[in-house]
Amino acid sequence: MSARVLIVDDLFPNVKLLETKLALEYFDVVAAMNGPDALAICEKGLCDIVLLDVMMPGMDGFEVCRRIKNNPLTTHLPVVIVTALDQPSDRLKGLDAGADDFLTKPIDDTALFSRVRSLVRLKAMTDELRSRAIASRDIGLGDPLAAAAAEGGLGGKVLIVESRRSAAERMAASLGAHHTVTIEPDPQRALLLAPEGGYDVVLVSLDIEGGDGLRLCSQIRSLQRTRSVAIIMIAEDHDRDRVVRGLEFGVHDYLMRPVDRNELVARVRTQLRRKRYAEALRGAVQASMELAVTDGLTGLHNRRYLDTHLGALFTDAAARQRPLAALILDIDRFKAINDTFGHEAGDEVLRAFADRLRLHTRGIDVVARYGGEEVVIVLPEADLADAQSIAERIRERVEEAPFMLRDEGRTIAVTVSIGVAALMPDDTVPGDILKRADLALYRAKHSGRNRVELQAA
Amino acid sequence: MSARVLIVDDLFPNVKLLETKLALEYFDVVAAMNGPDALAICEKGLCDIVLLDVMMPGMDGFEVCRRIKNNPLTTHLPVVIVTALDQPSDRLKGLDAGADDFLTKPIDDTALFSRVRSLVRLKAMTDELRSRAIASRDIGLGDPLAAAAAEGGLGGKVLIVESRRSAAERMAASLGAHHTVTIEPDPQRALLLAPEGGYDVVLVSLDIEGGDGLRLCSQIRSLQRTRSVAIIMIAEDHDRDRVVRGLEFGVHDYLMRPVDRNELVARVRTQLRRKRYAEALRGAVQASMELAVTDGLTGLHNRRYLDTHLGALFTDAAARQRPLAALILDIDRFKAINDTFGHEAGDEVLRAFADRLRLHTRGIDVVARYGGEEVVIVLPEADLADAQSIAERIRERVEEAPFMLRDEGRTIAVTVSIGVAALMPDDTVPGDILKRADLALYRAKHSGRNRVELQAA
Repeated sequence: MSARVLIVDDLFPNVKLLETKLALEYFDVVAAMNGPDALAICEKGLCDIVLLDVMMPGMDGFEVCRRIKNNPLTTHLPVVIVTALDQPSDRLKGLDAGADDFLTKPIDDTALFSRVRSLVRLKAMTDELRSRAIASRDIGLGDPLAAAAAEGGLGGKVLIVESRRSAAERMAASLGAHHTVTIEPDPQRALLLAPEGGYDVVLVSLDIEGGDGLRLCSQIRSLQRTRSVAIIMIAEDHDRDRVVRGLEFGVHDYLMRPVDRNELVARVRTQLRRKRYAEALRGAVQASMELAVTDGLTGLHNRRYLDTHLGALFTDAAARQRPLAALILDIDRFKAINDTFGHEAGDEVLRAFADRLRLHTRGIDVVARYGGEEVVIVLPEADLADAQSIAERIRERVEEAPFMLRDEGRTIAVTVSIGVAALMPDDTVPGDILKRADLALYRAKHSGRNRVELQAA
Repeated sequence: MSARVLIVDDLFPNVKLLETKLALEYFDVVAAMNGPDALAICEKGLCDIVLLDVMMPGMDGFEVCRRIKNNPLTTHLPVVIVTALDQPSDRLKGLDAGADDFLTKPIDDTALFSRVRSLVRLKAMTDELRSRAIASRDIGLGDPLAAAAAEGGLGGKVLIVESRRSAAERMAASLGAHHTVTIEPDPQRALLLAPEGGYDVVLVSLDIEGGDGLRLCSQIRSLQRTRSVAIIMIAEDHDRDRVVRGLEFGVHDYLMRPVDRNELVARVRTQLRRKRYAEALRGAVQASMELAVTDGLTGLHNRRYLDTHLGALFTDAAARQRPLAALILDIDRFKAINDTFGHEAGDEVLRAFADRLRLHTRGIDVVARYGGEEVVIVLPEADLADAQSIAERIRERVEEAPFMLRDEGRTIAVTVSIGVAALMPDDTVPGDILKRADLALYRAKHSGRNRVELQAA
């Protein structure tokens, strides 16, 4: 992936050296000589990945990293700390600040470039999702970015695939405080287990007995059901070529043996955050789309949903010669409720009415607010007699217990009139059923309300 | 990227040979010995890319390719035809069937693998988008996949970056019948032109004078504004290494010199289709989300949108000490319209009323259906006097011309009552303005309707 790499270093020769190398690899390079400039470039969306020096005057690299990762506008940017610091405590400090990797100078160029490519590719896959989530925010449907960025990376389900029992148990002990951990020593069984277990992160020992650890990684990555699982390779120092290979085909991260327990904890947390970030964005886009078919007041489906699904159910029932019925429900004297108790009380009655309907309908029924105080219920596989008994039950359940107004602590007696109709052989459009139900409702209203009336024979 | 590769070949040894090679590259392999089996595997979503033999008994590879590309469920799958056929006419037949590439045996493994990797990576970037579009369809918001797959790949904007004038003009002549073509001989100017021109496809000569063609490709691919532009490299035979390099960093396709004009036309069309496919999915997801804040009947914004945006406008106006006003409009005696002319006439009046409101409000105003026949208009930067004159103008425009019912050819005289309120220093929540506007509306109704009333001083 071609990408814009931001180099952050206060020493000009360092910037130049790295810039030249990256340009030869066909990356675009942007540079910043201090933390605040770097943060501004990130916020403006002018880079895809950050290579970050630690020791800078003013704001140091750890702080820059922390700010990038805690800002909803920039948290999706991968950060690789590139530094002369070589103490495990420095390394841990970087990873704890949220860095995706920590490389010590002198840098192995192959390792650096393969890392940058892998991180940029992984980012590219959620970029589209992030754009949709931003669009959802701009429309005014909440701020999914802020919620997604707040993820702490704890409480995940981790699978350790490792045949060496003691190594597996050490890792499990380190991770056990924060996550639910399962150990699987056999790679074949691990491949079966991975899609079943709902794991967030899978750690795979590359030198596992009984199979090829790297192939297991590639299989987990290819399987539809495990595609979004984060994978971390555990490798020996002599296995660096296979690590690079794994990064190329989409493995998310790796740890070299002997595994440092703090580093293990930090890397698992980073992967969990990244995975949940994508899930949160996905959920936000999904929720936005579902709002389009949801009535804001009652949470029932809306008329848009009814129109689409009644059409589909009608076509299906007609083609398969199966029964289909519909009810139109209208709360009796609803205007009087609004006039007497106010609009807010009216809204509360509507919400409580919707709750009772949910209790007395099946999962396959479509329950949609049709307008004002009218609700339509479409009943697949129900004939006129079935629909009549369902309507009668709903009518009774509404009548038998008055509706409680929470704020005022008072109750309102509510009744409902219901028109019932079922699919008939001559029906040509879905609206035909609704028209007959509407006429039946009209008769229910005019014969005294709180009644169920059926379509004319 | 790890991925599931479907090999389609009727000869078992061919399948085995390719399978072994791909497995060594850490791909997962699925195989089919004939066309119908291959189509079934694709439809079930069990592969990410198809390597397709041509000469098979029954359905040949061209037909399999055509069916994959014409089926909305499978059109997103890249197809590489791998065959012993070596005539330009075969090649063209494959590309015309929609194949992403056509490789002649004996296969150069490096070329094959780099091609497969590149196509799989490009697919991975739209997979997420496709999943969201499928979710939108499943909710019942239309079928974007069918619409997206119907794209013909004609009428695009193509930029040819080529310093050799005769070569550029030959390509332009070939493409001119189907697309709008621009030639730019200078790579520096091309980089400036690319984001401005709204191009769909950019053809880049790798041996262009005055710069590095491959670097231009990488820059176009990195720039935010040109990231989704399709790029095709034009290369000499000795430049295959750089072609592989380009595919690795995200270039979409390439043509070797001498450029075959039919192949050029076919490859540009394939890229245009792919790009527009992604755009169609993106547009569908966006449209689904926008429906969530749109009133289905009038096309005005809905109450959900009003609630979010009134809050933001209120906070902003209060913080910056700027004016803000709101109108509540209620069509007079709307129930009588419904009762006299029927619900459909009432709906038509509401739609026509909304149209007039759109004509007499500004782009920055929020116009939202509040419920039944009530509309709220929020006016940023407007004080009480401004709001009064806008309200008065709307009232007049509604009264002065009766509403035409299209179906019946008759007209209905409609009037509207409007309550007006503006932000006051003591307001603490956005609802405060609406409450005063509602009280003013109440007075307008009770002093004879067809009136504008202001909040009490």
